[in-house]
Amino acid sequence: MMFTLQRIPAFTSALFCRCSSKSFQRHCCRMLSKKVRVSDALSSKETGSNVRIQGWVRSVRPQKDNLFLHVNDGSSLQPLQVVTSSHLNTRDLTFGCAVDITGTLEKSPSKRQNVELHAQHIKVFGECNPVDFPFKIKERHSLEYVRQFPHLRCRTNAFSSLLRIRSEATTAIQSFFRDNGYVQIHTPVITSNDCEGAGELFQVEPAGHKNDSDDPNPHFFSVPAYLTVSGQLHLEVMAGAFSAVYTFGPTFRAENSQSRRHLAEFYMVEAEIAFTESLDDLMKVMEDLFKAATEHVLSSCAEDVELFHKYIAPGHRDQVDLMLKRKFNVISYTEAIDILKSSSQNFTFSTEAKHEKFLVKHCGNVPVFVINYPYELKPFYARDNHDQPNHTAAAVDLLVPGVGELCGGSLREERLELLSQRLAQAGLEDTYAWYLQLREFGSVPHGGFGMGFERYLQCILGLHNIKDVIPFARFSHSCLL
Amino acid sequence: MMFTLQRIPAFTSALFCRCSSKSFQRHCCRMLSKKVRVSDALSSKETGSNVRIQGWVRSVRPQKDNLFLHVNDGSSLQPLQVVTSSHLNTRDLTFGCAVDITGTLEKSPSKRQNVELHAQHIKVFGECNPVDFPFKIKERHSLEYVRQFPHLRCRTNAFSSLLRIRSEATTAIQSFFRDNGYVQIHTPVITSNDCEGAGELFQVEPAGHKNDSDDPNPHFFSVPAYLTVSGQLHLEVMAGAFSAVYTFGPTFRAENSQSRRHLAEFYMVEAEIAFTESLDDLMKVMEDLFKAATEHVLSSCAEDVELFHKYIAPGHRDQVDLMLKRKFNVISYTEAIDILKSSSQNFTFSTEAKHEKFLVKHCGNVPVFVINYPYELKPFYARDNHDQPNHTAAAVDLLVPGVGELCGGSLREERLELLSQRLAQAGLEDTYAWYLQLREFGSVPHGGFGMGFERYLQCILGLHNIKDVIPFARFSHSCLL
Repeated sequence: MMFTLQRIPAFTSALFCRCSSKSFQRHCCRMLSKKVRVSDALSSKETGSNVRIQGWVRSVRPQKDNLFLHVNDGSSLQPLQVVTSSHLNTRDLTFGCAVDITGTLEKSPSKRQNVELHAQHIKVFGECNPVDFPFKIKERHSLEYVRQFPHLRCRTNAFSSLLRIRSEATTAIQSFFRDNGYVQIHTPVITSNDCEGAGELFQVEPAGHKNDSDDPNPHFFSVPAYLTVSGQLHLEVMAGAFSAVYTFGPTFRAENSQSRRHLAEFYMVEAEIAFTESLDDLMKVMEDLFKAATEHVLSSCAEDVELFHKYIAPGHRDQVDLMLKRKFNVISYTEAIDILKSSSQNFTFSTEAKHEKFLVKHCGNVPVFVINYPYELKPFYARDNHDQPNHTAAAVDLLVPGVGELCGGSLREERLELLSQRLAQAGLEDTYAWYLQLREFGSVPHGGFGMGFERYLQCILGLHNIKDVIPFARFSHSCLL
Repeated sequence: MMFTLQRIPAFTSALFCRCSSKSFQRHCCRMLSKKVRVSDALSSKETGSNVRIQGWVRSVRPQKDNLFLHVNDGSSLQPLQVVTSSHLNTRDLTFGCAVDITGTLEKSPSKRQNVELHAQHIKVFGECNPVDFPFKIKERHSLEYVRQFPHLRCRTNAFSSLLRIRSEATTAIQSFFRDNGYVQIHTPVITSNDCEGAGELFQVEPAGHKNDSDDPNPHFFSVPAYLTVSGQLHLEVMAGAFSAVYTFGPTFRAENSQSRRHLAEFYMVEAEIAFTESLDDLMKVMEDLFKAATEHVLSSCAEDVELFHKYIAPGHRDQVDLMLKRKFNVISYTEAIDILKSSSQNFTFSTEAKHEKFLVKHCGNVPVFVINYPYELKPFYARDNHDQPNHTAAAVDLLVPGVGELCGGSLREERLELLSQRLAQAGLEDTYAWYLQLREFGSVPHGGFGMGFERYLQCILGLHNIKDVIPFARFSHSCLL
């Protein structure tokens, strides 16, 4: 006969547990205890209730009479303290092992936690040899060290906090767009556009495929196909039907770099908005998105965020609060150049990233929009401002503290004739015939932007290395797992 | 001086609109009218209010005194009826053109809509030559026809409804997992696993790369890298820290097929759950996910779903209601084979898809789980049931009406020794050394499944061709845009 929770009232559990057979008693206890997650147990008000938790041991402290464990199941940074008789201690009960514990939740005498679990039964599911396990009890391992173990680093406090934050930030971004009437579009990963004629593309063919130029049809897709560098052009298609659309997914660069700033596969949030006639409108969306997502993350992942702001990037919380409180700055590209020129620093041989960080510092460490770039610097789709004496395009970058460029966007050239001319100059009018048709049939002024999701996480958490904010990092010479 | 809505109370607008200069008057009207989306206008209770809408013309009906337009901005299937004096009709005002209209919302005398917009000003943003535009006014184009225009088909009713449903179904799935305590993981697209040794992989190298076997380091990632066919193994990593995780993203098969059932790039929902000891638990998650997501979509996209259930797959709503109402069936693989064998049909030369559909029909068109497959048919990670006389693995497929296989899952072999042996037999113990370590350090019983997102959409909408449920279809010999 099977006992189920539904059939037997909870208060009878004490009786059942007094039955004579030990294994039957354990079985009953587990069947009658309500399975709860650690995060729910920690916030539980019902002390005295019988519960069952399952997770991994994060610390073991045997004392004369009692054994203290910390058990984590990934539902929160804080573990649940488990107290039991020291005779339940076994050789298997080590840091890193997996356990199944039943007992009663009780008010904790310590100030460190509200409740603790008084365990009656502990079962070790999977052992963990502390000699072989690369993480050691009570040691705080550096981010560099744990990076070597992509299959295990999610079991460290810092990286599990990071991934909970990443998951919640994803939700926050999607909620922002949904609440504002955007339709989410799954733009394709494989594309025949090489977009801006940008280099650094990954090409895709079936495994074992030989690039044979004698073959009349050498490609799986009949044409060369690449991994997307941006969903923008596909979003422009959709903005012509839904007015406001966004995409959130992986993008790719075959950049030969192992620097702390580059990944071959990273995530981008991209939005495209029809009936947009001014960069002001775009900047408002970017600023609102940044602030709404950040406020959501700070409030729903307070504990996880605090780990970073306290131990890994001390003082960074003030920086985040400043960004949330202040209105973002706006300067023109020309002004930006003047600021860089008039600074005492020599930027001649400097990198773009250093320029960006200098500008942000100059603006009091508040994010700054740089607008209206030289027309010739921008891709074919950027809208011509038709201005004098500097001929500019209506493009914008958002620079933020610590990271530099976080977002890039522009109004798009919606005027058929102008776009047609520019594509013809580049010899691309056939390739982008479909793109021109978007302007031929019901064209509207529109614009959009992209935000690097990993850079966003770095910016709010104060993390220096982009490899520390993505579950599995891919970069030149590295594709572990 | 700039007028903004914030500074000027709405009731003064009438005054401003009476000013003498016509262009100034138009400008004022637009500045003073609140911009609303068509969906908001349609459900507005405030008749008499001044509003501004922007969208695309879906029909033009000139009458003697009045001109009737239907304007759609993608926020809903239903357009807004616009009524204006026929002298505002111009040659530019055609099917497909983009317009900016200001006027007053009034109660409509017709039963077809609650409100209509009495337009004072109409501006045509972008024209649309009806001769060149591939879609014609009042014509209902077939799904096959519109598929030829991947950059324009989102402007048809059916495909815009589809994409709104797809966006909302995405939200529904993510909400289901979030509400149940799952952490969302962005599993990588590029991977060095070739997973189950499955064929049909896409390989990735930088564009222009030559596959030169003399090169000592011929690969960008140092190793061959592929597009993912499943995020399962990466999710298993994460289930060992968070207990319950999921991923929702693109997956790939280099399948040389142009059939209505296959895509080279499609979306998968995959979940992995630690501390799971029975297929029952997995089946419960699959059934709950299917029912929760479907109920969400039916209630939040009622109008869009109705389009499919009324015009494209008549009668399909009953099928959907049946699936929601009934408990899903469970049969063993052995029973499934017996059912097929004892049927009067000859399945000797039949396809797997036909078997699946027959089984679903046999079960009264209610979804059916098929469990416990022959051990040898399943990949190395499937958990050995150690049963007799049929040696089976704890694997499960969910078959649904119209589509066949919708989900596939299994308990995973968590016992180090057994997994180790099986990998050694396949000569894979080095390749999957990291995967074995997951069992070495705190292993737990766990399992998971994947659900094809496009197949899910086909199943609830009654659509036969998978190319009609994805924004941009990629398949052999086709990668448009």
